[in-house]
Amino acid sequence: MNKNFIWKMQKGKPLEIKIKDMPIGREHFTFIAGPCTIENYDDLLEIAIHLKRMGIKFLRGGAYKMRTSPYDFQGLKEQGLNFIKEVSEKTEMITVSEVICAEDVDLMAEYIDILQVGTRNMYNYSLLKKLGKKTNPIILKRSMSSKIEEWLLAAEYIIAEGNPNVILCERGIRTFEDYTRYTLDISAIQAVKNLSNLPIIIDPSHSSGRRDMIESLSLAAVAAGANGLLIETHFAPDSTICDSQQTIDFEMLKNILVRTNKIRESIFQGETDE
Amino acid sequence: MNKNFIWKMQKGKPLEIKIKDMPIGREHFTFIAGPCTIENYDDLLEIAIHLKRMGIKFLRGGAYKMRTSPYDFQGLKEQGLNFIKEVSEKTEMITVSEVICAEDVDLMAEYIDILQVGTRNMYNYSLLKKLGKKTNPIILKRSMSSKIEEWLLAAEYIIAEGNPNVILCERGIRTFEDYTRYTLDISAIQAVKNLSNLPIIIDPSHSSGRRDMIESLSLAAVAAGANGLLIETHFAPDSTICDSQQTIDFEMLKNILVRTNKIRESIFQGETDE
Amino acid sequence: MNKNFIWKMQKGKPLEIKIKDMPIGREHFTFIAGPCTIENYDDLLEIAIHLKRMGIKFLRGGAYKMRTSPYDFQGLKEQGLNFIKEVSEKTEMITVSEVICAEDVDLMAEYIDILQVGTRNMYNYSLLKKLGKKTNPIILKRSMSSKIEEWLLAAEYIIAEGNPNVILCERGIRTFEDYTRYTLDISAIQAVKNLSNLPIIIDPSHSSGRRDMIESLSLAAVAAGANGLLIETHFAPDSTICDSQQTIDFEMLKNILVRTNKIRESIFQGETDE
Amino acid sequence: MNKNFIWKMQKGKPLEIKIKDMPIGREHFTFIAGPCTIENYDDLLEIAIHLKRMGIKFLRGGAYKMRTSPYDFQGLKEQGLNFIKEVSEKTEMITVSEVICAEDVDLMAEYIDILQVGTRNMYNYSLLKKLGKKTNPIILKRSMSSKIEEWLLAAEYIIAEGNPNVILCERGIRTFEDYTRYTLDISAIQAVKNLSNLPIIIDPSHSSGRRDMIESLSLAAVAAGANGLLIETHFAPDSTICDSQQTIDFEMLKNILVRTNKIRESIFQGETDE
Repeated sequence: MNKNFIWKMQKGKPLEIKIKDMPIGREHFTFIAGPCTIENYDDLLEIAIHLKRMGIKFLRGGAYKMRTSPYDFQGLKEQGLNFIKEVSEKTEMITVSEVICAEDVDLMAEYIDILQVGTRNMYNYSLLKKLGKKTNPIILKRSMSSKIEEWLLAAEYIIAEGNPNVILCERGIRTFEDYTRYTLDISAIQAVKNLSNLPIIIDPSHSSGRRDMIESLSLAAVAAGANGLLIETHFAPDSTICDSQQTIDFEMLKNILVRTNKIRESIFQGETDE
Repeated sequence: MNKNFIWKMQKGKPLEIKIKDMPIGREHFTFIAGPCTIENYDDLLEIAIHLKRMGIKFLRGGAYKMRTSPYDFQGLKEQGLNFIKEVSEKTEMITVSEVICAEDVDLMAEYIDILQVGTRNMYNYSLLKKLGKKTNPIILKRSMSSKIEEWLLAAEYIIAEGNPNVILCERGIRTFEDYTRYTLDISAIQAVKNLSNLPIIIDPSHSSGRRDMIESLSLAAVAAGANGLLIETHFAPDSTICDSQQTIDFEMLKNILVRTNKIRESIFQGETDE
Repeated sequence: MNKNFIWKMQKGKPLEIKIKDMPIGREHFTFIAGPCTIENYDDLLEIAIHLKRMGIKFLRGGAYKMRTSPYDFQGLKEQGLNFIKEVSEKTEMITVSEVICAEDVDLMAEYIDILQVGTRNMYNYSLLKKLGKKTNPIILKRSMSSKIEEWLLAAEYIIAEGNPNVILCERGIRTFEDYTRYTLDISAIQAVKNLSNLPIIIDPSHSSGRRDMIESLSLAAVAAGANGLLIETHFAPDSTICDSQQTIDFEMLKNILVRTNKIRESIFQGETDE
Repeated sequence: MNKNFIWKMQKGKPLEIKIKDMPIGREHFTFIAGPCTIENYDDLLEIAIHLKRMGIKFLRGGAYKMRTSPYDFQGLKEQGLNFIKEVSEKTEMITVSEVICAEDVDLMAEYIDILQVGTRNMYNYSLLKKLGKKTNPIILKRSMSSKIEEWLLAAEYIIAEGNPNVILCERGIRTFEDYTRYTLDISAIQAVKNLSNLPIIIDPSHSSGRRDMIESLSLAAVAAGANGLLIETHFAPDSTICDSQQTIDFEMLKNILVRTNKIRESIFQGETDE
């Protein structure tokens, strides 16, 4: 890490980010759930209502998808944005969706509250710079091949352009282990706290790629000090277009929510602001 | 994983191991602490008394050390075994120490309660087979380059010879990330539970190589469902012969112990049997 | 690999790509050299004249740079494009330069013969799609975290849009080894030949990050069957703005060129078309 | 690397090792071939005679096998040693076989000319120390998780005990790429030359785990400057007990031998001493 440099990213007091009066970071815990992909309006609404009832206030859903193969489903695109915007207005939920290229930033910043940068775009500096000109909070996923220093420097690309509202998201790195799809680097939580003032959330869904691991990894994340979770959830996980093997149902999510709160109460005496 | 094979390692009901009437595994939580290396009798005794007062019942300490360089300190050897045996008799603590080669198994099995196999010896099948002829519980550390399947097969080498008392210990794998010394694979906890009935404990000291991470990783481990922790502790961490940068003092250990218990009470309603 | 899919990328007869009557791929060997970054007109011209005299016909030079830190030098940009275009007209060399975002594709396709996609952009699908609408050959570097299958699917993003002229470039993957900056995956050469008809070239400069390894890796590449080399070269390597520790001088390049030709003659009885 | 230390391993003039008047290292090239496992006397003799006719002077064959599962075939053991000793006397070939534990060193040192330490035993320091008391040359395979520095320190364990005759063997490291079984680290050849005076040979069979890659990797190795090759060979590769998917037949071996010699003649003007 270049020690001579004055980063715009501050150390010291942890950052608190506000979106529609909801705080993220510092002592708050942000629970984000929803489907991998927005498939249609009715299903998204049903999922949102379920989540809302559990007390969850952040809804995720993909409209534009980055797929390894050019022949895989690439998302509902602008129609998907319309669906999630309508649903969020009905349910008063805060929305999270991935922006996959610089050209889409202006459009998406209108529709979506929190813009997410995926693991394959962490090094897409022209995208990061454009997001630095917006005021939306940005969830910056770690590249699967990124050292922690490079990840913070990617955040710095956004911050240096004027947008300080960066939320880091650890989603697993590439290793030789293949029982899980990626290896969740749980140490990244403390590392980020040592090196920056940014909030860090954990995505147990993509890191493991396995439904039977979401609970264990979620509880580990909250105990390790994460500021939130990003979990793929659907009322019928087995029937989803993508990521069905890692998507969980509402019952499992409820269980995680309850136990997450218990851990936070027991060790942090804090409150969860889902 | 070879699905056609009848493993001696059972799935289903988690294994409970007994050593001097203390249970390990299943709903029990095993807290093991002590210095990296036994340096002299007085220091070891002082550490043991401190740990005992905190309620910790398992004392670790290395007598034979595996060192990357042939010119580094290799441990007090038999003298170290004498020291830890005496200390354990005085304090009534259960001892854990590493056995580094097959030739030492008979001797060490007399002096030490629980024998530990280090990461560099996980593939040392002649050592594993010899341990399979003993009744001492064995802590089998994962090789830094081992897939979970290979680790379970290494356990099977011990079990197949007649000793079912294997405790797995995740201690970090080799990846490209260099902020930590190794990458703690927190997913291994759930993976081992999916695939076997063996207890699994976590070593946050060697996986991170950083004192400022031990607490975060320990709490993550307990929340993820680990059956115990193995933590390098010393009254004066900065003055130890080896591993000083990852060894913690009693105050930090106390803090971890308290918070570990709180997490376990909150989510498992279980009790910690240190 | 999805076996049910009809890829546009053909297997069987290796592809031959033509640029200004120079063939790339199949039995031809393409030697590309030049500075990491275009620093000024005069230096670039001097380098080009030197390379030309050695018989090298492909000149590389960066105008837009992707840098891990937002505060590092980001290249001469459009001025750099002007310099390399002028130099190529004077020396009749074919130019190679990196395009770092979709917005720059139209401009760069006018100035530069062969457009290069860097390791951090291999997953930048909007960039790849835009390159698929051009006729310039594309050098597609492998992501440092990409499996071979994902790399071929990234190539397919370009090919599926109509541009079949993709040249793959292996430049090292991320591993735990830190003596070199990345680990050159020499097996990728044969793997790509097994799975596709695309040419594959090797970048020994970025993979090792060490001047004292360029020759050994270059000779390995040609013997393993690579279709070319991409080597950072400068008349005064120690004084370059970036990558000086891996940039070689003309004497070392000459030596590599001579030995490369000897190997090709001895085992392939082919000719090198630099 | 500890710079303050006076290693017994010398830098500077490359080491030449002699075994039965055959030199290894320096400008010599050592071609070692034979089956993964010794299966019976007749097959081994047939293989040896074939190899001898091609001019190959080093015969490999496993008598004791390290297997990931305790239930896999573990070798013919002492019977295997008898077979290979008899065959070597008939054919006047120099033998190479793996020693899997310290207890077997004395016995094997009588039967076998060159003792091999496998990747899983590189950190088995009690084995290394025992080999340091013998005069047989030792082939020390790199651990799949070892940095180059640790590998050299493992060699130093042997050398420090009095046996300077260590031959390093790169056989692939663990990475995320799964098209090949391991990733051959071709850069290790130059790295070892930079850091030590020891010969280094390459094992393309275990590193790739694929028959269709042996030739490409072998040619790369010789061009990169390796001092030899260790290749699994059998007259009927598909019928072998282990490693059949990576074992090649004599025709493929002949082809590699011819092209290997051509490369060496063209660039080193040296001679191959198989």
